Amino acid sequence: MVNETMYDYGSRASVIREIFEYGKKRAAEIGAENVFNFSIGNPSVPAPDTVTKALEKLLAEGDPVFLHGYTSAVGDPGTRKAIADSINRKYNAGVTPDRIYMTCGAAGALSSCLKAVITSPEDEIIAFTPFFPEYTVFTHANGGKLVQVESRDGDFQIDLEKLDKAMNPHVQALIVNSPNNPSGVIYTEETIRNLAAYLEKKQAEYGHEIYLISDEPYRELVYDGLKVPYVTNYYDNSMVCYSYSKALSLPGERIGFALVGPKMKDAGKVYAAICGAGRALGYVCAPSLFQFLVRDCVDEVSDISIYKRNRDLLNENLTAYGYTCVRPDGAFYLFMKSPEPDANAFCEKAKKHELLFVPCDGFGTPGYVRISYCVQTEQIERALPAFKALAEEYGLTK
Amino acid sequence: MVNETMYDYGSRASVIREIFEYGKKRAAEIGAENVFNFSIGNPSVPAPDTVTKALEKLLAEGDPVFLHGYTSAVGDPGTRKAIADSINRKYNAGVTPDRIYMTCGAAGALSSCLKAVITSPEDEIIAFTPFFPEYTVFTHANGGKLVQVESRDGDFQIDLEKLDKAMNPHVQALIVNSPNNPSGVIYTEETIRNLAAYLEKKQAEYGHEIYLISDEPYRELVYDGLKVPYVTNYYDNSMVCYSYSKALSLPGERIGFALVGPKMKDAGKVYAAICGAGRALGYVCAPSLFQFLVRDCVDEVSDISIYKRNRDLLNENLTAYGYTCVRPDGAFYLFMKSPEPDANAFCEKAKKHELLFVPCDGFGTPGYVRISYCVQTEQIERALPAFKALAEEYGLTK
Repeated sequence: MVNETMYDYGSRASVIREIFEYGKKRAAEIGAENVFNFSIGNPSVPAPDTVTKALEKLLAEGDPVFLHGYTSAVGDPGTRKAIADSINRKYNAGVTPDRIYMTCGAAGALSSCLKAVITSPEDEIIAFTPFFPEYTVFTHANGGKLVQVESRDGDFQIDLEKLDKAMNPHVQALIVNSPNNPSGVIYTEETIRNLAAYLEKKQAEYGHEIYLISDEPYRELVYDGLKVPYVTNYYDNSMVCYSYSKALSLPGERIGFALVGPKMKDAGKVYAAICGAGRALGYVCAPSLFQFLVRDCVDEVSDISIYKRNRDLLNENLTAYGYTCVRPDGAFYLFMKSPEPDANAFCEKAKKHELLFVPCDGFGTPGYVRISYCVQTEQIERALPAFKALAEEYGLTK
Repeated sequence: MVNETMYDYGSRASVIREIFEYGKKRAAEIGAENVFNFSIGNPSVPAPDTVTKALEKLLAEGDPVFLHGYTSAVGDPGTRKAIADSINRKYNAGVTPDRIYMTCGAAGALSSCLKAVITSPEDEIIAFTPFFPEYTVFTHANGGKLVQVESRDGDFQIDLEKLDKAMNPHVQALIVNSPNNPSGVIYTEETIRNLAAYLEKKQAEYGHEIYLISDEPYRELVYDGLKVPYVTNYYDNSMVCYSYSKALSLPGERIGFALVGPKMKDAGKVYAAICGAGRALGYVCAPSLFQFLVRDCVDEVSDISIYKRNRDLLNENLTAYGYTCVRPDGAFYLFMKSPEPDANAFCEKAKKHELLFVPCDGFGTPGYVRISYCVQTEQIERALPAFKALAEEYGLTK
């Protein structure tokens, strides 16, 4: 007598979680240093010292009744102002605090945005492969259908022809995720411009809004000085789902926000619907201490040079061994082609070398694996011989 | 093109919030000391010093990668064990850590439990008046119908005859809330025993489970040594939604749990459905730092002697002025009969005396008001002449 869909969500562990747990078990058996667990996206770089210091200062000087009290449901006004100011300094985006809704991380923001824009069971949400598997759960749980559109082969930018084949008047929103989990790809300015122009055209054709939901937990994790275009500057009907999980290495604290673009049509109404959806989902307010922390540390970022070093080490060596990798511009995942068509079978063979990573079937890209490099650099160094041996097994080594 | 129900939830401020905001505006006009704002349930007693010290210790000694990292989706194992041990010490309830799901407060727990047990649009959830208005939002948002059952006049215990008139095979669950918001009433052991016996009978008659959801954010706020029966000891198919918001004065931090009774039928399946519902609602894990805080402070409680003093001061004086009050056994609200049938009109007249409290129409009890006494005692002392003048206006004073 329980909801079978919810039971299914609760009882079928995600593939990622399953492999991660296997890794923990295996580490207990043969020693942690002998298991190469690249399965999970938990930041390995600690929160900046300034974050710990700011938290200590808040606790030492703040009035606990205020510090730990309910904030306004939409979030502390000072925090929202600090965020808007920071975005405008960096991207000249003209966003305003009254269009920012503080949430329990990007997942809380995404759920609220999806619930706000899904109006009937016919409504469709488009995601581009590869995409974070929870998009499907969040879309279904809020009453809509998720439609996958394949990305361009090779560079994984948006393929407008494929998008056009999927597009129809039931599409309420598209989700983009750049830098991407699991591919590490950043959408170029050209991609965003072309997507915006295409969506403008389709909006005019259908006579209704099509929302662009930009899921941005990896915005700050970008290498080689690349820029991630700010979507609200390119497409009016954009909303942004942001998280401090990766930027400040605070994934467990559940702090982020949803933002409605300043030029969105009926921005006030859409914003109210997002806040109402958050209320209906049971989010009373985002965790208060970490709201104040964000206010005080809005421009801080964890030391991403460690991720960059890991990326280079892994990407250069694996490519040298003969693997086909997408060189990540951002995030902390290496997206690699499985040397056999079945990525699950490949992952099983890798396990024999104590190499643990994730098949990407659930991300909409069978035949690929995700290797999380948010790990200690030493783990990568120790794992390289195993990667090499596995490559030799497949006859990849040149 | 947004979901109109969500827009409605987001744009219609709750009555409580509206009065609270009016109070802030009015305070700016005539001085905070001249406005008697009894509208909101934000704890006025600070978190215990031990909580601040425990947080400082965690920050000083903990590894930030672990401290702020994702916990398991169901919650940190050490935290869940500490909670189970504490409940078993106090109530000999035989609960186990593997049936505890850490949540973003009681609202996150309630939403997850409701989403888990609602299986079709015909499903009904029963709440007893007066009840927290968000029960309606959470039930509707998760696809069910909320049915109100009036409580017994005078003592506000459960009226089994009225319950029996509402009961039918579509009822999936009942929500109880003791100590109650807004009445302060605690259900007696007899009430719980009788309810359990009645539900056992109806389960046998219908041939399916009827769940009892106990919403318990006020469990620790109890006066005069009264006991709040632990529902899982009386009825097997019980689940508990708990929050540290009031017990530890941390309402903004969003930390609590859902618990499935150890003798529930198919307990593992129900638990998995609750966890799956939490996942579908976008809750990745409960805030990690505050999970560890709960582990370290599981038996602490804020200084409730202040609330007791406030209760006595308010209840004794208002009763002496001729108002009809329900003497609160717990929580921090005084539930008072409006001296005229329309509680909204009464609240408007009270406003002229700068007295701000909430009409209880939204709680399912028109003709009553809620006076929150989680305020500075001095505010009550300053407000008494205004209460007296208002009573005189109605000719209540004897």
